[in-house]
Amino acid sequence: MAKLQSSYFVCFAFSIVVNLLLVLKLYVGGEWELSWSRGAAEEAEHVAAVSCSGHGRAYLDGLILDGKEPLCECNSCYGAPDCSQFLTACAANADSGDPLFLEPFWMQHAAKSAVVVAGWHRMSYTFADQSRISAELERHIRKLHAIVGNAVTQGRYIVFGAGSTQLLNAALHALSSNNLSSSSPASVVVSVPYYRLYQEQAEFVRSVDYKFEGDAAVLQNISDANTNVIEFVTSPNNPDGKLKKAIFQGSNAKAIYDRVYYWPHFTAIPAPADDDIMIFSISKLTGHAGSRFGWAVVKDESVYKRMSESIQISSLGVSRDAQLRALKLLNVVLETGGKEIFEFGYNKVKSRWEKLSNTLALSNRFSLQKIAPQYCTYFKKTRKPSPGYVWLKCEREEDKDCYAVLQNEANIYGRRGSLFGAEDRHVRLTLLRSQDDFDILLHRLNQLVLKENEPQKLFVNEI
Amino acid sequence: MAKLQSSYFVCFAFSIVVNLLLVLKLYVGGEWELSWSRGAAEEAEHVAAVSCSGHGRAYLDGLILDGKEPLCECNSCYGAPDCSQFLTACAANADSGDPLFLEPFWMQHAAKSAVVVAGWHRMSYTFADQSRISAELERHIRKLHAIVGNAVTQGRYIVFGAGSTQLLNAALHALSSNNLSSSSPASVVVSVPYYRLYQEQAEFVRSVDYKFEGDAAVLQNISDANTNVIEFVTSPNNPDGKLKKAIFQGSNAKAIYDRVYYWPHFTAIPAPADDDIMIFSISKLTGHAGSRFGWAVVKDESVYKRMSESIQISSLGVSRDAQLRALKLLNVVLETGGKEIFEFGYNKVKSRWEKLSNTLALSNRFSLQKIAPQYCTYFKKTRKPSPGYVWLKCEREEDKDCYAVLQNEANIYGRRGSLFGAEDRHVRLTLLRSQDDFDILLHRLNQLVLKENEPQKLFVNEI
Repeated sequence: MAKLQSSYFVCFAFSIVVNLLLVLKLYVGGEWELSWSRGAAEEAEHVAAVSCSGHGRAYLDGLILDGKEPLCECNSCYGAPDCSQFLTACAANADSGDPLFLEPFWMQHAAKSAVVVAGWHRMSYTFADQSRISAELERHIRKLHAIVGNAVTQGRYIVFGAGSTQLLNAALHALSSNNLSSSSPASVVVSVPYYRLYQEQAEFVRSVDYKFEGDAAVLQNISDANTNVIEFVTSPNNPDGKLKKAIFQGSNAKAIYDRVYYWPHFTAIPAPADDDIMIFSISKLTGHAGSRFGWAVVKDESVYKRMSESIQISSLGVSRDAQLRALKLLNVVLETGGKEIFEFGYNKVKSRWEKLSNTLALSNRFSLQKIAPQYCTYFKKTRKPSPGYVWLKCEREEDKDCYAVLQNEANIYGRRGSLFGAEDRHVRLTLLRSQDDFDILLHRLNQLVLKENEPQKLFVNEI
Repeated sequence: MAKLQSSYFVCFAFSIVVNLLLVLKLYVGGEWELSWSRGAAEEAEHVAAVSCSGHGRAYLDGLILDGKEPLCECNSCYGAPDCSQFLTACAANADSGDPLFLEPFWMQHAAKSAVVVAGWHRMSYTFADQSRISAELERHIRKLHAIVGNAVTQGRYIVFGAGSTQLLNAALHALSSNNLSSSSPASVVVSVPYYRLYQEQAEFVRSVDYKFEGDAAVLQNISDANTNVIEFVTSPNNPDGKLKKAIFQGSNAKAIYDRVYYWPHFTAIPAPADDDIMIFSISKLTGHAGSRFGWAVVKDESVYKRMSESIQISSLGVSRDAQLRALKLLNVVLETGGKEIFEFGYNKVKSRWEKLSNTLALSNRFSLQKIAPQYCTYFKKTRKPSPGYVWLKCEREEDKDCYAVLQNEANIYGRRGSLFGAEDRHVRLTLLRSQDDFDILLHRLNQLVLKENEPQKLFVNEI
């Protein structure tokens, strides 16, 4: 009887302890009892948990099946409701610089990079200081440049924009409207090969203040000394990854440095850039192209003011939602002094470049740009090349349209050389897209190079 | 002994039941056990719980004290760390149309309007359909117009932009670049009083395709029949709330209808608008000015294409973060067929208008615009006026600068009439800001009107 009683007692005591532990877990234990944010959090986790076989993902704002199940959005060349089916005949997409190579990084850092936006978050047109710029985000940006050592920001002004896109236009406007003394429009120049958007923007706006004139090297020989010149310099360059400097110098020449690829993912950082106008964006830093957030670092106060005015008049500043997101992302980047994301990015792009280089090394038909290893002040070591793009050249005399060669013979879509002001003997292939896109590209290129070598082998054998 | 044993048993059974209930609550019970989103949710609720005495709020991206406590950002005229201190000498801000009158609505609907953004949410430049526009959000917008009955969207195209601001510019570009056959720039006109941004944008860009010419009524008499005219029509009008129509008609005249105030908050909806280009935004619909999200409803396919191209070239589309937020907000709006938010908004603005009207009714020195009650097809009843702004007039001959009168005699900052192309005898006072701002404005106006009447009273007594 006493034994039964004592075992009762043990069970009872155990049950009480379990009770206490559960209560602790539920109501104390450092965990905040969630109220208004719980539904949204559950919804987000529910969507994130949808399995898309590793070849796609579901989004909160994606299409919903039966008003309940979010649908998978598959990577190119994958289909079926769960993205499990490989579409063998589909083209390898090596066109745009969609920076999805960084997506796995953010999936690995899910907890730190999530943001909960309350319904009443930042409804106003302005921040508390009456600006349209988050002071906290600006502080993060300055800190990041200091840590990476890729740009001087002390004593410089910072302007936010909807990606580098809006800032390039604002900078062009600021520099050209400055020179009202000159009656002729400023000449906008670039050096070949160049990113096409500069030309598209300059021609689209049809301003009286500037005119797109094309290749700087050509214009340098024919322009008179009084012409105002505004030069777009992309450094590292898109498409070929080279670190570049402005061709035009002197008092009538001004440069807009597009520095969006000047991060340790893509290039060695030999020294902090200190150009008059430098443009950066999160698209190529964190991979969030869709957020449309970038910034310019500007030396001259009057240029800064005109750029700010331009952003103001065209969109009343940058979405506060995009600014909040950028803040959270940069916070994660800064936590390890950039180490985690830059090593992830560098290793990923470098490995892709190496694989593609190795494949093309077997070819006489195709070549790619040469990039030498260089000492990087951020990694504190000599690093190997990891450019965002391969600038491919078709070497055979008859392969004048290299884009068509890749398309017809290998089902690969790159971006044709003429879109960069160069010959169509060149094609740009991106290394920045998803792993699936890269794998298919590599596979198709391998096959193409194998095909090239097969007849030669036969020929050798025949001799 | 048996009694003791039985009471042991009862306690044990009770403890087991409690255990089961706790386990149910913790792990089953329909509640998702949160993982990666929990930290962000806790952080957001922690910030939201900061007390700012009802006169301010803390934000996730606000300044942080000691790396821990988020700081309150106080409404104008409130200070101290918890915003509890009323700053008696401060000016009443009745200037911008910052739509914070809707903030309490979203605080009341916290659970439904919260969004959790995963670190990898929509990193790409494009959606799955290769567009830069959320199909789900477009569907919500069309549904909303159908329910409210304020715009025809069937068979119409929809373009997204960074608020109405970016879309106004895109529309101007689309209409002016259309007419390349004409050698002279299109004349951009408005009717007085008008929203100044149209002029600022048109003059800022310095395009060869258009020129700002001012008041339509003046130009109508002097323009030749071959001039292409692009007219901005704000309906309801900013500043006076009137429903307006384009003055210019005919084959050379095109109109851009700014319909951002055409919602039941601000006006009766007599019929669905069916203009060629209609521009809307969430700023004045949900109150989220900071998100920078708007849309245009466009009849003509080629205009739609040029507007889309313009948005594309200036910013590569609208931030996906802003689009996600807008989707979530419209979802809440649609849940009750708009009933909750429009009744909230209408009642709020109507009550402010009534209070201000009643005060000014006692004055001979100031008058305001007349707005008649009108039948609203949305509310299915005749509704009272609730314009977003008071268009105040100083009636005394000597009060030519009405802005200065309010500033010097009542410490009220409005927006001067000349900024709307009108006389400075007019001032616009906003009814859209926070309750604190409105209360101070009303108090100051009351005092001003009392002061006006006091000498009269004395005079009467003296007689």
